[in-house]
Amino acid sequence: MYVTVVHITVKPDNVNDFIAASERNHTESVKEPGNLRFDLLQSDQDPCKFILYEAYTCAEEAAKHKQTAHYQQWRDTVADWMAEPRQGVVYKGLKP
Amino acid sequence: MYVTVVHITVKPDNVNDFIAASERNHTESVKEPGNLRFDLLQSDQDPCKFILYEAYTCAEEAAKHKQTAHYQQWRDTVADWMAEPRQGVVYKGLKP
Repeated sequence: MYVTVVHITVKPDNVNDFIAASERNHTESVKEPGNLRFDLLQSDQDPCKFILYEAYTCAEEAAKHKQTAHYQQWRDTVADWMAEPRQGVVYKGLKP
Repeated sequence: MYVTVVHITVKPDNVNDFIAASERNHTESVKEPGNLRFDLLQSDQDPCKFILYEAYTCAEEAAKHKQTAHYQQWRDTVADWMAEPRQGVVYKGLKP
């Protein structure tokens, strides 16, 4: 399992729009053949902070995600809503 | 979905033992009725850095995890292997 934990901070005025756009991205991403998880999380402490938890069978399948229309639409839609650059951290999934 | 992202840094000499103990904890934790995910991740950049990604149906089910024998055994087993205190960050799972 190849996991990217993407840390996202959104401008306060754009939180609801960000959630809506990310829910659409989730709906399409979980249909990708190599996808195992695509969880959208909102911090309990700060509603502007989110995690996208993206698990794929391997690095190649994760890379294919970036070629999809739904990813590219999400990326362009949310671009101006970021309060700071997104940070993706890669992990090996040992279990499961 | 109630998610705790636990950030863990292990002393270099204890990495393999930590993985073995955490795999045992994973195996039992995913059997808990309220558990949705219990992923063990190792950083791609630093083999001493881990995440436990623990998703439960609600906060009450997550709290029950801490009462289980397998959690308490894991906690006591790994205590001396921590390079710094663990940090658990709580998120609301918006999707799924």
